[in-house]
Amino acid sequence: MSADRSKIQWNGWGAAGFKNPLAAREEVWTWLATQLGMPSLLATPARPLDEIALTDSRLIPADIEKFTALLGADRVREDKYERAFHALGRSYHDLLRLRAGDLSLAPDAVLYPRGADEVLAVLAYASEAGIAVVPYGGGTSVVGGVSASKGSLRAVVTLDLSGMDRVVDIDTVSLTATAEAGIYGPVLEKALAAKGLTLGHYPQSFEFSTLGGWIAHRGAGQQSRRYGRPQDWLVGAKLATPCGLLATEGFPASAAGPRLADLAIGSEGVFGVVTEATFRLKPVPAAKDYRGYLFRDFATGIAAIRQATQEGLSVAMLRLSDAEEMRFYRAFGAVGRRLDLMSRLTGAYLEARGFTDNAAMLIAGFEGGEIEVRQSRKRFAAIAKRLGAISAGGGPGKRWYEGRFHGPYLRDPLMDRGVGVDTLETATSWSKLDGLYVAVRAALEKSIGETAPRPGARGIVMCHVSHSYPDGASLYFTYIFPRALDGEIAQWRAIKTAASDAIAANGGTISHHHGVGEDHLPWIAKEKGDLGIAVLRAIKQTLDPEGILNPGKLIPPTTQP
Amino acid sequence: MSADRSKIQWNGWGAAGFKNPLAAREEVWTWLATQLGMPSLLATPARPLDEIALTDSRLIPADIEKFTALLGADRVREDKYERAFHALGRSYHDLLRLRAGDLSLAPDAVLYPRGADEVLAVLAYASEAGIAVVPYGGGTSVVGGVSASKGSLRAVVTLDLSGMDRVVDIDTVSLTATAEAGIYGPVLEKALAAKGLTLGHYPQSFEFSTLGGWIAHRGAGQQSRRYGRPQDWLVGAKLATPCGLLATEGFPASAAGPRLADLAIGSEGVFGVVTEATFRLKPVPAAKDYRGYLFRDFATGIAAIRQATQEGLSVAMLRLSDAEEMRFYRAFGAVGRRLDLMSRLTGAYLEARGFTDNAAMLIAGFEGGEIEVRQSRKRFAAIAKRLGAISAGGGPGKRWYEGRFHGPYLRDPLMDRGVGVDTLETATSWSKLDGLYVAVRAALEKSIGETAPRPGARGIVMCHVSHSYPDGASLYFTYIFPRALDGEIAQWRAIKTAASDAIAANGGTISHHHGVGEDHLPWIAKEKGDLGIAVLRAIKQTLDPEGILNPGKLIPPTTQP
Repeated sequence: MSADRSKIQWNGWGAAGFKNPLAAREEVWTWLATQLGMPSLLATPARPLDEIALTDSRLIPADIEKFTALLGADRVREDKYERAFHALGRSYHDLLRLRAGDLSLAPDAVLYPRGADEVLAVLAYASEAGIAVVPYGGGTSVVGGVSASKGSLRAVVTLDLSGMDRVVDIDTVSLTATAEAGIYGPVLEKALAAKGLTLGHYPQSFEFSTLGGWIAHRGAGQQSRRYGRPQDWLVGAKLATPCGLLATEGFPASAAGPRLADLAIGSEGVFGVVTEATFRLKPVPAAKDYRGYLFRDFATGIAAIRQATQEGLSVAMLRLSDAEEMRFYRAFGAVGRRLDLMSRLTGAYLEARGFTDNAAMLIAGFEGGEIEVRQSRKRFAAIAKRLGAISAGGGPGKRWYEGRFHGPYLRDPLMDRGVGVDTLETATSWSKLDGLYVAVRAALEKSIGETAPRPGARGIVMCHVSHSYPDGASLYFTYIFPRALDGEIAQWRAIKTAASDAIAANGGTISHHHGVGEDHLPWIAKEKGDLGIAVLRAIKQTLDPEGILNPGKLIPPTTQP
Repeated sequence: MSADRSKIQWNGWGAAGFKNPLAAREEVWTWLATQLGMPSLLATPARPLDEIALTDSRLIPADIEKFTALLGADRVREDKYERAFHALGRSYHDLLRLRAGDLSLAPDAVLYPRGADEVLAVLAYASEAGIAVVPYGGGTSVVGGVSASKGSLRAVVTLDLSGMDRVVDIDTVSLTATAEAGIYGPVLEKALAAKGLTLGHYPQSFEFSTLGGWIAHRGAGQQSRRYGRPQDWLVGAKLATPCGLLATEGFPASAAGPRLADLAIGSEGVFGVVTEATFRLKPVPAAKDYRGYLFRDFATGIAAIRQATQEGLSVAMLRLSDAEEMRFYRAFGAVGRRLDLMSRLTGAYLEARGFTDNAAMLIAGFEGGEIEVRQSRKRFAAIAKRLGAISAGGGPGKRWYEGRFHGPYLRDPLMDRGVGVDTLETATSWSKLDGLYVAVRAALEKSIGETAPRPGARGIVMCHVSHSYPDGASLYFTYIFPRALDGEIAQWRAIKTAASDAIAANGGTISHHHGVGEDHLPWIAKEKGDLGIAVLRAIKQTLDPEGILNPGKLIPPTTQP
């Protein structure tokens, strides 16, 4: 297998060898306790795997014999680490359970197929035998997209696609490539770069997620403004289903009825298993330029993004942190460090220019040919200047770029100290964006206050605009809060519910790029409508009549609670 | 009703008052006869409506009473003109039948609803009463998309949406608008222009087609490179179905499962009736610049389009005629006219520069801000020059732009003279484009020869690249041929089948922007796959369980012939 699971954390984020230097800096935790209105932060370490007992497998010997005959013994795994690794995704909700040793959702076995034929054979047997199958790419879902639920079936296996990671073809004339779905981001981009090409899909999970996962959960890379989302770059996909292989159309454009490839995007493994995809490429950009602009406030920064996007500026990314997010990360990074003279002078200068605590930082990323990058940067700088922004130079851009995949690593040390940290995201039109921002922020703050472990405890709610479109933008919220140690799951659910209700009531989508999974099920029926859900159910019934694929994700159960 | 049907031809193209000056120029017809290898061209006039008898309506009095109660008497039409007008679309195949007086597919009545509620009520009654319903926008389908087939039901009504043409909202912050589906192109663009905005969707049928039709048949405007196709500009749609209203998502982007709006696009009235849509706008361009470039041959012109598209040049349109298309239209326009000195000198110059009969003309259209247009034009000129092209100046661009909606008017005088003219179109990746071009051209020429009315008779097969994408392009074929007057429908079908088989065998889609309708049904199962068709059937079964909506379109019957 190309991806060594033992080198990836089973109950935390990313590389098992990664050590966060933050963990040892006591002054940081003292400062954070104050921020959260807590007298101190408690040590809340994760339970080690050897202390946790797994329930017995619900598979019968005939199942294992069959899977072994289909795949080979080394590709049918029943050991504790494999089962624990594949039990859940990597959301805050998942980590709460994994760290507490709750492995009740561990799959009964993990299967590693080597090709679409093997996937089809597994699905055919599982359909006949009544075994649930959870398709699994990198497993980085933060919405419960890979929880190994057996639904109403007798057992569940996880189908780990990481053994299917070949690049099948690169068409340098049409600028498209075809690859197996289990290929990891870095492996794919390396193969493309050898031909001077890139897909350019870089979600924060890039290092640990796969092509098939990107398609199945309908996500977006950080530079989607330039490189597009799966609906932009996917030419066609192969979907292995219990009823056979569905190979969708593969044309640059077509008027031959609804595009079936669009049904694979966001299908979250409930219609079939994405086994292969053909996708559009761009040349590796000759130039990249990331830099910061300081706006007086969030609203002015949003105005700049809207103007740039609607004028069709060639930008790869426009990312605007609100005042809270900017303040928190600056303070967090500065704890226990003496501000140097330059920083103090800069602070004084900004204050004199009217940049108060409301200031918002925008990171603008430009990628492409040298001339294109230079021209776009100039045009954006002119927009920013007209709106009273100040250039913060290349420093903030460089820092953001270098740390662009590191955010999730912060979560583990926080969780070791009784601190919760979760994120959620949404999108709406420009005309509804401010209302949505205010409502979700208020809902989060209120709910965090109401579920706090002691009076006076409070959360830190931060937001940034992460993706923009001519007609609207996404909002990404990060919230840090003291955990209610006697009811952590209930606290998570209360906060999540409050925020999601606010999203639904204010014209936002329940997810801009994380997906639906299990966590967003309560809101999906409202968003799609009853008839819309009926359509999704009919598609599933056609492709997966026994309902073995990824039970409990995307489509709400027929009988509403 | 905002669109007066009496001012649109019931058995030909466009405005009833339009007189083609060509018809009276006998020398043109003599010349054309020679080109087609015919001794002369026969007069083959269309039968006037008053000579044609319509079959009796199959509706019962209770149906008419119900429809009248729902819509009002003036919106339930049973007169001969209305029934004839709505019998078929406006393809060559349709015109053959209409001109011959074959009105066997005339609907039993034509209904003009004024809103989604009325559409829902009609669908509910029709479902219960077993009456087929054919949704109808402008009726310009050229693939049999609006044929009033009753399928296996007892009667059929056409639901003409042209009474639903209100602009509901224009959001100048988000640059989106919402309008009812029956609004005609010019009415919509006029309302948008009043706010300085445009949708920019200008198919050749623009003057006679509607917003709902553009969405339902998944077409493309001539400037789709800049303004996008429905899958790019549609934010959300309302689809009235026999099971109720399906209002799809309306977000700039979302990861909340497959996008239902994508199922409305290309649904061709078989899932529901598009009653309203929200779509993205752009500012009315400050500048437009259309001009011609002469390439040594078709392949070199294609190379220029590929390069410009893959480099991301801001172009509205790149349209490249092959040598046959260019030769035909030049000769056709020059028949009986003496070439002036300038034209003769130009011809000599081009010959000296190596531009032979293989030369291909490219019309490049640039739209946008003044600077954007100037920069893009320069960049494209540089690409063209490097490939050895010669600028033909603004003349060809101006002539193309002025005549951009007039092409279909040429068909009627040709059909008056025993000449057939049909078009078909496809798309594929750049790496397959040349093979597809050669194969379809050969299939057309061979089939036209085989079905010719006499030995030595031949067709004229022309092609142009009409739309381009970073990964491929579309090919649009026009073919003119002497009609086999004793078997015109069989001749049409033989030629269509030969070309479509060649498309399917050479990696093309059966339609790039015309749709599926009835005419492309034999090829859709291969393109979508059996499982894909099963998915489309399941969706239809969910939304239209009685199968009343647009029988015989898009989805092949369960039992294959």
